[in-house]
Amino acid sequence: MGSFKGHALPGSFFLITGLWWAAKQTFLYTTRRNKSAGAGRLASRAIQRRIEIMEGAVILSFSIIGMLAEQLLAGGPKFQLYDSSTQHWEQLMNWQHTTMYLFFAIAGAISLTVHSRDIAPLALDRMLLALAFFNEGRILDMLDVHVHTLLLYAIFGQAFICLLEVFHRGNILLELLRATLTILQGSWFWQIGFVLYPPSQVKWDQIDHDNTIFVTLCYCWHLAFALLTVAVVYLSVLCAVRSRLRRMPPIEMGLLKPREKEVESEDEIL
Amino acid sequence: MGSFKGHALPGSFFLITGLWWAAKQTFLYTTRRNKSAGAGRLASRAIQRRIEIMEGAVILSFSIIGMLAEQLLAGGPKFQLYDSSTQHWEQLMNWQHTTMYLFFAIAGAISLTVHSRDIAPLALDRMLLALAFFNEGRILDMLDVHVHTLLLYAIFGQAFICLLEVFHRGNILLELLRATLTILQGSWFWQIGFVLYPPSQVKWDQIDHDNTIFVTLCYCWHLAFALLTVAVVYLSVLCAVRSRLRRMPPIEMGLLKPREKEVESEDEIL
Amino acid sequence: MGSFKGHALPGSFFLITGLWWAAKQTFLYTTRRNKSAGAGRLASRAIQRRIEIMEGAVILSFSIIGMLAEQLLAGGPKFQLYDSSTQHWEQLMNWQHTTMYLFFAIAGAISLTVHSRDIAPLALDRMLLALAFFNEGRILDMLDVHVHTLLLYAIFGQAFICLLEVFHRGNILLELLRATLTILQGSWFWQIGFVLYPPSQVKWDQIDHDNTIFVTLCYCWHLAFALLTVAVVYLSVLCAVRSRLRRMPPIEMGLLKPREKEVESEDEIL
Amino acid sequence: MGSFKGHALPGSFFLITGLWWAAKQTFLYTTRRNKSAGAGRLASRAIQRRIEIMEGAVILSFSIIGMLAEQLLAGGPKFQLYDSSTQHWEQLMNWQHTTMYLFFAIAGAISLTVHSRDIAPLALDRMLLALAFFNEGRILDMLDVHVHTLLLYAIFGQAFICLLEVFHRGNILLELLRATLTILQGSWFWQIGFVLYPPSQVKWDQIDHDNTIFVTLCYCWHLAFALLTVAVVYLSVLCAVRSRLRRMPPIEMGLLKPREKEVESEDEIL
Repeated sequence: MGSFKGHALPGSFFLITGLWWAAKQTFLYTTRRNKSAGAGRLASRAIQRRIEIMEGAVILSFSIIGMLAEQLLAGGPKFQLYDSSTQHWEQLMNWQHTTMYLFFAIAGAISLTVHSRDIAPLALDRMLLALAFFNEGRILDMLDVHVHTLLLYAIFGQAFICLLEVFHRGNILLELLRATLTILQGSWFWQIGFVLYPPSQVKWDQIDHDNTIFVTLCYCWHLAFALLTVAVVYLSVLCAVRSRLRRMPPIEMGLLKPREKEVESEDEIL
Repeated sequence: MGSFKGHALPGSFFLITGLWWAAKQTFLYTTRRNKSAGAGRLASRAIQRRIEIMEGAVILSFSIIGMLAEQLLAGGPKFQLYDSSTQHWEQLMNWQHTTMYLFFAIAGAISLTVHSRDIAPLALDRMLLALAFFNEGRILDMLDVHVHTLLLYAIFGQAFICLLEVFHRGNILLELLRATLTILQGSWFWQIGFVLYPPSQVKWDQIDHDNTIFVTLCYCWHLAFALLTVAVVYLSVLCAVRSRLRRMPPIEMGLLKPREKEVESEDEIL
Repeated sequence: MGSFKGHALPGSFFLITGLWWAAKQTFLYTTRRNKSAGAGRLASRAIQRRIEIMEGAVILSFSIIGMLAEQLLAGGPKFQLYDSSTQHWEQLMNWQHTTMYLFFAIAGAISLTVHSRDIAPLALDRMLLALAFFNEGRILDMLDVHVHTLLLYAIFGQAFICLLEVFHRGNILLELLRATLTILQGSWFWQIGFVLYPPSQVKWDQIDHDNTIFVTLCYCWHLAFALLTVAVVYLSVLCAVRSRLRRMPPIEMGLLKPREKEVESEDEIL
Repeated sequence: MGSFKGHALPGSFFLITGLWWAAKQTFLYTTRRNKSAGAGRLASRAIQRRIEIMEGAVILSFSIIGMLAEQLLAGGPKFQLYDSSTQHWEQLMNWQHTTMYLFFAIAGAISLTVHSRDIAPLALDRMLLALAFFNEGRILDMLDVHVHTLLLYAIFGQAFICLLEVFHRGNILLELLRATLTILQGSWFWQIGFVLYPPSQVKWDQIDHDNTIFVTLCYCWHLAFALLTVAVVYLSVLCAVRSRLRRMPPIEMGLLKPREKEVESEDEIL
């Protein structure tokens, strides 16, 4: 869907996912660091597991909604790939977008499986997420509109970060950077929608050199805004967890050895 | 051999190798994780060693078959490099392909040596595999047909993964990703054969923009298919090993310390 | 400010920062290595913390000065982005430079926060520094003047090194290399000023091929000079710390275990 | 010196250095692995240190010889940079080559210093070697002759490997790969000399497409040859050390704890 809605939909998905990641990772990180204060009860391994499963399910649903929207809504190819009467491919752009969603669906489904049944290493979810981002980047790489090119920095950056996370799982900095870039990607999708398919009458002159420079600047400000958003989410969750912990009575930790406490966090198991 | 067969041969080699790697690595990983259940007997170090030696021998044979096919079959240069009568190089494309196979032959031969005699670190096999893939990528880089360019993502990806494995040996995710990309490369070689040298009468219009987009999409679907194949192989081997282990009587493990058990796996020795 | 001063200002900032980093990191490294000799008193954790906070504050001030200079000095847009009377963007180049400074301001502010209050991992300062350098590189990437292109090597090199430091915090080699590249960047900004806006009457012929080669050579000599500067700073600080330590009376260290001593250095905490 | 000799000189330097590295690193690795058999006496830390110092001195001398040859031999600029009478730069190509040698001279001098006096971390030698290779690559990057472009793979590969060695010091695979690429670079410099300045009358047609392909193939064969050379050196040194150790009487090792033995190798200290 080369349309405003076709950009607003993934934009919203990425915005929600980015905000969710910022909140989740901060929550897990904060409870991990304040373990001795009884945070183990706030984020036990069972709860972590349930959160991850829910996350996988949500990503899977988002991707399926996206795929159906691309296929069925206004002018979609309705799962028909080749029109033999006109000897033409049917709406290849929609098929491209469907393929992008497909890899996120795979990542979601595998994340669901990995966290609900013990059959593969946990880091598999990040590996497939990296693959999904690489795939998205490669497909968008073929469009040579400047606003899409800027998107690629965020996408390949995310793919690279997910790959790093396979080896440095549980590093809060990488997790927050991933959330930041996801929010950037989401808000930039909305911006692309407004630039390429302006809802108002005023057309945007894409050839104008000054406009190109302005769009690049705009991109930087989106990044600064995404950083700010993640910082706000981080601080809110941090304060919430701390105030919650302060109200909890301390439990006896003397019997737990450091090793056992660490294992409680699912994120630290490779 | 710029021909259908010249692509089908490496395609088959890579498909077989990819499937084999998926099965082997899953087998080793599963027995490693379920060691306490007596899996040590299923995959003792001697058996692992024998598997690796066999693998090296098979890769070596594949490469030699490939080199001979390039040199001797229909229109090959028959080991003649320069035709002094016409003052022309003889069939440089076949020589290119021979050179590609040569580096895989070196990798196979070294893998054979490293695992049969204790003279060099084990990770040498992955290092040379990385070199062979880099070499393949660099030679294919000179052809600027779109279908070959797509192949490069898989090839350089593999080279990069093999290099990572030199430092993170025994990481099942990297091993499965390597298997996936090998299967992708194999199936894509077949696809290239069909696109460039269609056996049927219908010619494929390579210039058509829509066809280019379709081929790129097709590549993504090959990747999804390769992921599915590896997942199926992974689950089959996992179930097979688990059901086999359940039928085995438990052995006394109390006397083995964790350290000693780990060392049993050849993959974890750097 | 596409002017001599617009290059001299960041040039001076980077030169000062580079020299400061070389001195600071050498000081911390030397006291860390000679801990047993009583250096703990020279660089206690509280002093380290205060140094880092000061550094953050200085970087923040530099960035704010830079932003104000770009906005308010001769011909700046005075915080007006769009001139609706002429329907033109106002001085986009100054806005670009302001945006570059903005990310260094963010990095400085976060460094200040991270080191003064215990709310996030320390490595966050390097992560944001990496982001600021990436951002600077991306914006400068749009100018295709040869002298600016050379600058990119230093900038992206720095971004990469800061990213490595997130994982290898406290590695003196990376820290000194960062200082070296910062000095290189600073002195090269001055050079750019002289080349593009020569204060003397003699114009510099930028098209001339020989001049291009000479500029590249010049860049290498700047690098050699930056290396020399850092070496001189390193040796001076090393001698100063050593001579200072020799004059100090040894303290009783027998009661401290190795672990406890290490923790004293803020740089080694991730 | 854009001449045959100007390529033969660095070619010889790199060939000698590559062979030396292959032998040295194998020697250190073999004695390290067979420590229990009394190899400690063959390669004590003092001897290692002396070897490294000698190596630094040799690299320094090579670089100084190279610089002097570029400056003083047939048509060199004799340390004059600018000819004010003709208002022209003097022989910028020789100045380029001098600059390349300069960075190797810095690397050699620092290696000498680091290993003879305990003032900086040992890994500094590899860091500066990486810098020297990056610098060489960047300067050669400006020549767009195909034979020089191929050289860049080896040079940037070496720079990357030296950088990896900063973090994975003492990894024999990286060390041997560095030796291999150095030999490749050396033999390829000779090849370039023969291709660009053929001593015989027959001119080499550089535009011819087939020749370009042949040169690329040739490059791969140089790589295979370099791998073979390193393998031969590796096996010779391995056998020599082993036969030497077999003839030595075993010493009492019972009193040494594992930790102490490890420290004996200079390569493992970061």
